[in-house]
Amino acid sequence: MKHLIILLLLFATAVQGEEYGFVTKYIDMPLDHFSFTTNTTFKLRYLVNDSYFSNDQPIFFYTGNEGDISMFAQNTGFLFELAEKMGALIIFAEHRFYGETLPFGNESYSSPKTLGYLSSQQALADYVYLIDNLQKKYVNELSSLRKLPVISFGGSYGGMLAAWLRIKYPYSVLGAIASSAPIWQFQGITPCQNFNKIVTDVIGALGSATCVETIKKSWSIFRKIASTDIGKQNISKTFDLCTSLKSDDDLNTFLNWLSEMYTMIVEVNYPYPNSFLVPLPGNPVREFCSRMDSVNYNNDDGLIKALSTGVQLFTNYTGTTKCNNIGQTASPSLGELGWDFQACTDMIMPMCSTDEDLFENAAWNFTEYSDDCYKQFGVRPRNEEVPILEFGGTEIETASNIVFSNGLLDPWSSGGVIANVSAQVWSILMPNGAHHSDLRSANELDADDVKSARLFHEKHIQKWLDKFYFRNLPLDIYTARLKSKYI
Amino acid sequence: MKHLIILLLLFATAVQGEEYGFVTKYIDMPLDHFSFTTNTTFKLRYLVNDSYFSNDQPIFFYTGNEGDISMFAQNTGFLFELAEKMGALIIFAEHRFYGETLPFGNESYSSPKTLGYLSSQQALADYVYLIDNLQKKYVNELSSLRKLPVISFGGSYGGMLAAWLRIKYPYSVLGAIASSAPIWQFQGITPCQNFNKIVTDVIGALGSATCVETIKKSWSIFRKIASTDIGKQNISKTFDLCTSLKSDDDLNTFLNWLSEMYTMIVEVNYPYPNSFLVPLPGNPVREFCSRMDSVNYNNDDGLIKALSTGVQLFTNYTGTTKCNNIGQTASPSLGELGWDFQACTDMIMPMCSTDEDLFENAAWNFTEYSDDCYKQFGVRPRNEEVPILEFGGTEIETASNIVFSNGLLDPWSSGGVIANVSAQVWSILMPNGAHHSDLRSANELDADDVKSARLFHEKHIQKWLDKFYFRNLPLDIYTARLKSKYI
Repeated sequence: MKHLIILLLLFATAVQGEEYGFVTKYIDMPLDHFSFTTNTTFKLRYLVNDSYFSNDQPIFFYTGNEGDISMFAQNTGFLFELAEKMGALIIFAEHRFYGETLPFGNESYSSPKTLGYLSSQQALADYVYLIDNLQKKYVNELSSLRKLPVISFGGSYGGMLAAWLRIKYPYSVLGAIASSAPIWQFQGITPCQNFNKIVTDVIGALGSATCVETIKKSWSIFRKIASTDIGKQNISKTFDLCTSLKSDDDLNTFLNWLSEMYTMIVEVNYPYPNSFLVPLPGNPVREFCSRMDSVNYNNDDGLIKALSTGVQLFTNYTGTTKCNNIGQTASPSLGELGWDFQACTDMIMPMCSTDEDLFENAAWNFTEYSDDCYKQFGVRPRNEEVPILEFGGTEIETASNIVFSNGLLDPWSSGGVIANVSAQVWSILMPNGAHHSDLRSANELDADDVKSARLFHEKHIQKWLDKFYFRNLPLDIYTARLKSKYI
Repeated sequence: MKHLIILLLLFATAVQGEEYGFVTKYIDMPLDHFSFTTNTTFKLRYLVNDSYFSNDQPIFFYTGNEGDISMFAQNTGFLFELAEKMGALIIFAEHRFYGETLPFGNESYSSPKTLGYLSSQQALADYVYLIDNLQKKYVNELSSLRKLPVISFGGSYGGMLAAWLRIKYPYSVLGAIASSAPIWQFQGITPCQNFNKIVTDVIGALGSATCVETIKKSWSIFRKIASTDIGKQNISKTFDLCTSLKSDDDLNTFLNWLSEMYTMIVEVNYPYPNSFLVPLPGNPVREFCSRMDSVNYNNDDGLIKALSTGVQLFTNYTGTTKCNNIGQTASPSLGELGWDFQACTDMIMPMCSTDEDLFENAAWNFTEYSDDCYKQFGVRPRNEEVPILEFGGTEIETASNIVFSNGLLDPWSSGGVIANVSAQVWSILMPNGAHHSDLRSANELDADDVKSARLFHEKHIQKWLDKFYFRNLPLDIYTARLKSKYI
């Protein structure tokens, strides 16, 4: 069975129809910041909103992750709301090899010779380069500062980048808000089963124990039923698959599709309705289990029926889906292929499932994983420790000005920084938060702990900025700032 | 006139005949730590001396610079002496593309496709990779620690690397001793004329004002005399050149050769005799000027004669040199070509000379510099700010556990950290120190300030280690350590 490499990020559209406005810009970016074998450059896309910006105010810089940057820009409302309060310039930078930022155009993914330039280290250096460029643009003769303070923001993999940007390049960004950033989801730090254990716990706690049991029992039943052609056909019909299952490979793809769906429902368990990849109601975990539990069953076929009833919440909430394509990427905006490559090179996150979770058992087998990588991309992970060597794992006690936030309903909290590291590196937990709930725009249905996290971010940013301005502004201008709300 | 790109490092042999013992080892090193276009590895050489090492004691890691690592190993006696006191493991790691560490063998320097992998960032990542490997080797079942504390050491460019290793990878090294490390010799930080101004000041102060004047006047006289063929021949004869000057290019090479010699004499103005590239007496600046000043002159030919008398100190102190080859690299152990490449890519150090120094006037012209780089290597510096973007320039206030030492007689102190940055990043000055005098083995003729610097290093290392052991050792073992001299 293919190992679960679940995409880090799913974004709901903030409010149907509402759109944050941005100007799209491009910067000529060196392809390789660390070697000098090539002087190739490419166009890196970034989005700018300067409608709130006033002189000497900060830059809020979203460190784009594995997907089209406009999706992130539309779904990180918190940054927008805070920029309005603080007079900040808003930048959303697209991660190389995602969205429109394809260094080699259509050839970008064709071989390691091109795709090999997709790495988190290169992406961080891109952001440093872009920030330097922005400083030159937005510091002018009216500025009292030589450099504007920059706060990096990011959710999920973007949150990892936001934190690492501060850690590796503290002269480029003053502080970082890293939401649901699993910087410890690596070898030797987080046991591989933790992620799936959380998925299970959340479905059990917010859904029901029955719901967990149904899913848990389903895997062997699926395999039993699917051992015959007619069984495969029945499953295909029950789950409205566009193409009938024909082989064991098809069955595995189908079971993966189910697994990822369960995970996704948990990741985005926001309290308000969302137009996802597919639309979902608020509190989808509860709704999912409640639908599933409403079907009483006393045999295998009944269990499958119950499961399919639950799954329809995800696949067909609006009742307009004709059939389910299990081979399709969940969201065309997410660069699943790019992320798979990163997971094979520098973002190697060991995952496994055991008897303690609701997934089909799957051990973490690095050799097999490496073989799969080689088959798919022609690369092998150098070793499992690459991300530790690059970013230090848990040894971040010398870092400063970072807030890590984690929703405890989010399975990615398994690899998150869920305790304060020092008086400079803080952690805030949202017991009722899902995957980077706090970066989303304010919603009246938000849990109090999500609201608190946003306030926590704001207070920390204020503190960093105040220190920065105190050090860098002429005294009279600093004093004048003190009289305004945000210093 | 070719811009002065003076090699950072010249090492004298500690004591003629005495040799520090090392075992030579090799590690398979990934060619590219930051991208995944290739899985090529190469053999990186490193030297080990474990004769003082005992369990749980630190690793002293010399971050090799632009030359054969065995030369550094033989000329960094301080590290050796301190390791004996502290029971440390001694490692000297060779910088990629220097010495025996040629990733592509004889083809390493053939084009940017190969030579482009020579960069300070890749070298730092090499060291992190090697240190990780050493941890696995030297932490065993007898260890009370999970990781040994590592102190990085380096002089000159090696000192820059030692400091940056701590700054970028604080989880890899606990602290750094960065001697004569001009991490601020970059665009926008240090005025380009400062280096040559110090050369001039030192020759004036330790030599004589006459000596400075003679050199200063010489450039136009050389150009006047060399305007005829017979003049070129006379100069060639006076300076015992192996090949007579024939063209203006030859003349420029000759004048560069002189310029670099004046700089070198200052850099290595140690109080004791040294067997250099060529042997020199102690206090060579004083001796050089005294010889030169002993020749009274009242015309151009006389001035040239005086100059040649001084220069002989450097070229023929033992009286065995037959002729001077001005095209030859000063020391075969130094990778001048590699350094020239680095100076064209990530170590771009603007240099110029003005009326205030004794050199022929030469402006810093980035365009011309870039053209020269392109002519020589087929690469151009991306821009002058590359090293600032990579390493932050003066903004290192978040760094910790670094001591920067600078000899004030060393022209490279122009780009050094010559004031404390914070309570975590210290600077110590040696008013009578030359280029990384403090890293050399103790000599009874050492100035008191050089001796103090070594003590300063030792105390800081002790402090870092004590904190480390307090945090990482079981209490009983820590307490036992307290009873020994070094904690």
